Amino acid sequence: MSTKQERLVIIGGDATGMSAASQARRLRSPEELEIVAFERGDFTSYSACGIPYWVGGAVDGRDELVARTPEEHRERAIDLRMRTEVRRIDVPGRRVLARDLEAGEEYWTAYDKLVIATGARPLRPSLPGIDASGVHGVQTLGDGQALIDTLEHTEGRRAVVVGAGYIGVEMAEAMIQRGYDVTVVNRGKEPMSTLDADMGRLVHEAMTGLGIEMVNDAEVTKILTDDDGRVRAVATENAEYPADVVILGLGVRPETELAREAGLPLGDHGGLLTDLAMRVRGHEDIWAGGDCVEVLDLMSGRERHIALGTHANKHGQVIGSNVGGGYATFPGVVGTAVSKVCDLEIARTGLREKDARAAGLRYVAVTIESTNRAGYYPGAALMTVKMLAERRTGKLLGVQIVGREGAGKRVDVAAVALTAGMTVEQMTALDLGYAPPFSPVWDPILVAARKAVAAVRAADGQPG
Amino acid sequence: MSTKQERLVIIGGDATGMSAASQARRLRSPEELEIVAFERGDFTSYSACGIPYWVGGAVDGRDELVARTPEEHRERAIDLRMRTEVRRIDVPGRRVLARDLEAGEEYWTAYDKLVIATGARPLRPSLPGIDASGVHGVQTLGDGQALIDTLEHTEGRRAVVVGAGYIGVEMAEAMIQRGYDVTVVNRGKEPMSTLDADMGRLVHEAMTGLGIEMVNDAEVTKILTDDDGRVRAVATENAEYPADVVILGLGVRPETELAREAGLPLGDHGGLLTDLAMRVRGHEDIWAGGDCVEVLDLMSGRERHIALGTHANKHGQVIGSNVGGGYATFPGVVGTAVSKVCDLEIARTGLREKDARAAGLRYVAVTIESTNRAGYYPGAALMTVKMLAERRTGKLLGVQIVGREGAGKRVDVAAVALTAGMTVEQMTALDLGYAPPFSPVWDPILVAARKAVAAVRAADGQPG
Repeated sequence: MSTKQERLVIIGGDATGMSAASQARRLRSPEELEIVAFERGDFTSYSACGIPYWVGGAVDGRDELVARTPEEHRERAIDLRMRTEVRRIDVPGRRVLARDLEAGEEYWTAYDKLVIATGARPLRPSLPGIDASGVHGVQTLGDGQALIDTLEHTEGRRAVVVGAGYIGVEMAEAMIQRGYDVTVVNRGKEPMSTLDADMGRLVHEAMTGLGIEMVNDAEVTKILTDDDGRVRAVATENAEYPADVVILGLGVRPETELAREAGLPLGDHGGLLTDLAMRVRGHEDIWAGGDCVEVLDLMSGRERHIALGTHANKHGQVIGSNVGGGYATFPGVVGTAVSKVCDLEIARTGLREKDARAAGLRYVAVTIESTNRAGYYPGAALMTVKMLAERRTGKLLGVQIVGREGAGKRVDVAAVALTAGMTVEQMTALDLGYAPPFSPVWDPILVAARKAVAAVRAADGQPG
Repeated sequence: MSTKQERLVIIGGDATGMSAASQARRLRSPEELEIVAFERGDFTSYSACGIPYWVGGAVDGRDELVARTPEEHRERAIDLRMRTEVRRIDVPGRRVLARDLEAGEEYWTAYDKLVIATGARPLRPSLPGIDASGVHGVQTLGDGQALIDTLEHTEGRRAVVVGAGYIGVEMAEAMIQRGYDVTVVNRGKEPMSTLDADMGRLVHEAMTGLGIEMVNDAEVTKILTDDDGRVRAVATENAEYPADVVILGLGVRPETELAREAGLPLGDHGGLLTDLAMRVRGHEDIWAGGDCVEVLDLMSGRERHIALGTHANKHGQVIGSNVGGGYATFPGVVGTAVSKVCDLEIARTGLREKDARAAGLRYVAVTIESTNRAGYYPGAALMTVKMLAERRTGKLLGVQIVGREGAGKRVDVAAVALTAGMTVEQMTALDLGYAPPFSPVWDPILVAARKAVAAVRAADGQPG
């Protein structure tokens, strides 16, 4: 064969890195493309999103969260080097410096093509006591294991969760499932700041109903410890919350120190900036994806940082196709997210009110209550749907849903409508599946769309 | 007031008729618009789709299926005349002849605007024995009540359901729920002819697994009776199936005799033909909607007859807006439908293989298996997704889903994508909600779209 063998180097062995490796291998044989992947931890291709369910006991063990082991990757002719940390990227020299964390040796590896998939690191505010025993993050499988070990060796049953975003509320559920008394301390006015406060209020009320103590508008000032250095309470300006274990759920930042030192372009949120093919801007042979990049928000036209496994996997797929000589793009996101706390489902897509204002849009916002099934069908459960539409054009801007079974994934209809640029009037005619066990005769999304149409007309002084 | 009062006459007091009445009343006061509605039966605004769940016992009583009673309509200044059948429409004379079924009197009522919402009637083949005691249709609340009365006075526990479309499979479920031995006799190769046969096969297998005897490829030739005229068996060319009760689930035809006699335009399926505002073609002041009209199938560009409560309600809303001086349209359908048999969910939207062929389209079809939740999450349940895409353009043509919890309403994503004219490649980038309790990291719809992209490329000789 006349084709020169190329070497693809991948930094990071989780969703993006290993998806890219797998897809590239599908397209290119080992004779065409050598693939070397460096992972500083002990696991590959795992579901970080599954950690709360492992901690809560719904998922049996750590191994279930691992989609593909190092051995399985190696069977596909991927030269995967575990517990090996890349310390430097030499862009002009087209090589990376890696350190074998076991042997302590460092060595350079040349690349023809490079994929940066270094992920994100959890926010860990520099507070007194933050490093105390019993204070845990939940970003990696190792973090999850450390938390479970602590829980198994702790007698007290009081957990304080710091932060009330997705990770915070999911960890609150996990600790409730384990039988803990749970307090959630949250800086925002209401939990789930990815929702408008009126919808966050519904989450607040439901969590209170589950017996969770919700502390809003509160900034943690320090972690108080015992004489032996174990956590005993979380302090805010006004109060102290006794704690046998503290879980930090404050969100994450892109892990891009390596990229910054290499002079690669970073955005306002600290994530790598790429083009639509996930190539690092200005660098023909370097790709990046997953939690270490910023993504284009199609609704606002701005870059955002969204750490989400589904994006990371798509990025890996796109990168693998392009690196392997195919063609694929990641056009951006509309900002869909879904979560739950026990049987409360929470979903959002598109712009919140404050996002719409920040984008300079004039909008109407409507809120409706409906049910997941026909009202007369057993198990019919309430949901609240909030919908934003642009004035004048009637274009759908965003949807938030809080409710019981069947509430969460209904947001997908709005996500597709946003992607397609539909108006709320167009949405009222959507041919959604109807049968009594699945939906009222007017699906809640259609009810919201009808009300939004009326609101757009009223705002512009037209008759209904 | 200088405005002359107009009279709106509505024929049919179910979903379309009474939705139209309510919406028109919202827009026009009684001084502006008199509304007279004729209903030949005993009920208004009820959910015929709920009848199987009432018969099966999931819904307590008949009244739960009635969204709004005659009294509630009358409170809104709608002159509703129950048990009054319209016998003739005099189009040139702008009047209808109605018969009070109690008093036996007939009288003419003039109209300025007319709404025809006469619904559908069940297919009832003219077979020997078809009128035997114990043979039931399930189209109206009265039908449902008659069936329940029969069941309560019948000792035997053998039910034969004729037909395996939506009504057939839902009635099979209902009879299983009531503890009957159920046989489904079906003319098609597989149940659910609204699916391709390979997907219908999955329904067949699941129904067999529920203990239902499935007889495919079988035409009923006669209903056999006792000496006292009660049903005792259903006969096909090759066999006899003992029956204590027989349920006809053969689908429906538009109820348009009145319209036909009045010279109004009917389509190939016997339904009234309307414009996009639901105005009967060629008749400025006559509207029609619901089960008595044909609707535009946006995928094939042809008219179809689809009897479905969700369309009937939308039609009523559109008609009421237009009759009331507003503006609304019903742009057509993509053919979405969802159903279930016990815990098996069945959904479809867009074109089947034979529809695509009939429309002259070249297409690829792919089928994938995935789960409703992350594979490691408790309750993760299988679903099979079949997806059709046009060759060359990659345009989505249709989706069919058969599976367990969470399978059915996933079809909505495809319904919106069809409406928006998306390609399967565009669909692979859809920002659908992801969290382990709601979806695998690649939603089943995305997995199918990825496979469809590969199939489109392969069919056109492009590399993956």
